[in-house]
Amino acid sequence: MKFLVSNDDGINSEGIIQLATSLRTLGEVVVVAPDMERSATGHAITMHQPLRVRQVKLQDLDILAYAVNGTPADCVKMGIDILIEGKPDYVFTGINMGANLGTDVLYSGTVSAAIEGCIMGVKSVAISLLYNDIMDFTYAGKVAVEVGKILSQNDLKPYNLLNINIPNVSEKEIKGMMVTQLGHRRYAKNYEKREDPRGKAYYWLAGEIIDESFSDDTDIEATKNNYVSVTPLHYNLTSYNMMDTLKQWGFNRV
Amino acid sequence: MKFLVSNDDGINSEGIIQLATSLRTLGEVVVVAPDMERSATGHAITMHQPLRVRQVKLQDLDILAYAVNGTPADCVKMGIDILIEGKPDYVFTGINMGANLGTDVLYSGTVSAAIEGCIMGVKSVAISLLYNDIMDFTYAGKVAVEVGKILSQNDLKPYNLLNINIPNVSEKEIKGMMVTQLGHRRYAKNYEKREDPRGKAYYWLAGEIIDESFSDDTDIEATKNNYVSVTPLHYNLTSYNMMDTLKQWGFNRV
Repeated sequence: MKFLVSNDDGINSEGIIQLATSLRTLGEVVVVAPDMERSATGHAITMHQPLRVRQVKLQDLDILAYAVNGTPADCVKMGIDILIEGKPDYVFTGINMGANLGTDVLYSGTVSAAIEGCIMGVKSVAISLLYNDIMDFTYAGKVAVEVGKILSQNDLKPYNLLNINIPNVSEKEIKGMMVTQLGHRRYAKNYEKREDPRGKAYYWLAGEIIDESFSDDTDIEATKNNYVSVTPLHYNLTSYNMMDTLKQWGFNRV
Repeated sequence: MKFLVSNDDGINSEGIIQLATSLRTLGEVVVVAPDMERSATGHAITMHQPLRVRQVKLQDLDILAYAVNGTPADCVKMGIDILIEGKPDYVFTGINMGANLGTDVLYSGTVSAAIEGCIMGVKSVAISLLYNDIMDFTYAGKVAVEVGKILSQNDLKPYNLLNINIPNVSEKEIKGMMVTQLGHRRYAKNYEKREDPRGKAYYWLAGEIIDESFSDDTDIEATKNNYVSVTPLHYNLTSYNMMDTLKQWGFNRV
């Protein structure tokens, strides 16, 4: 099994070291990740400036690693297209420092990197550990290995990927694993206004999370109840059941 | 009718001036757009640096306009949350310089800005004009007005938005309007390798488009055949029909 590993926290983050180390027990691992933190970049790609690649030493690990001055999606694109010989069997992204739950997956560089792997025809998984003052990625690494084992025995369909969120509690507090759907997450009071020393206004994105709970099997509820959440994702944004309605409204003039 | 208008080509682009001018015939328009070009930013939002807002004069138009040093999604978020008094009735984004078709919608700042409007509970539309050496946005502006009129008489459901692509041909060559689904668009030979004057390698994102044609009613086919394409989009990435399969694979341990 050959894994491409990427993330959005940057190549030197603890989470990616843990993910690479854990997956190394299952096969070959190549890391291609942003040279610096790139969280909340969504599915951005770099079109208007050139990209640079630098081979780096990942601590004392026996793992080939490249740092790219681009976004997570750039890294996966370059990894598959140029840097890795042959096609990888899997793209694993993370382990993200903080949750990627509900509507927030749209903003996530980690999830977008996995979507990019999926677009390029590689089976892809995004893994995130919920945020806490103490971030211990050990258990999340074990989950990554378990997921890798299950996927090696079952064929994830094209255009589908997995989004996994792990509660930040001790291993013995974990109640199990749950297949979930994305919840709804909105934010209120998005911006905090401040004044710089010259009296000019600036704004920080802040935001109070509003979780709209509509079902026990959302990723938000599952992690709240100490279950590892496994959500199958796709990336087809067509709203098929609206097509007929739009025709009735007069949008079809053929 | 009150419109929030944004884009990813930047506040001084021709396309947004046309969109604002056209929608002004239907009601009030406020422009909130990036201070510079921000295409291919996907759904990126700015979390790690503060945002600045500057009120600007949009040519000789009687339209309130703000430039933000952020992404298209930032602009829509700030527009709805802070800059516009009361909630806008519609978010219109564009008119984008170039298509946003098929899988490419994931990379698009213009479409992501419309998705952000939708997430915040406002009816949203993204409009793009296919790329050509000559970009005349006049007809696309008329389409925007038509769409605005239809939406004022019909209630776009929550969690749904419209993605509109307009062929870059003269108005009399337009064959009509078609309700479409997203096509598949992949790229081959993604990167071009070059050497800088110091002999160091760098890479440009290039890519030959591979359109996978599987149906006549995709956005890609419709625009190719000179139809204005209207695609209903949603932003729920849950792959519902995979949930049972994952349970069978042993991902549910509750």
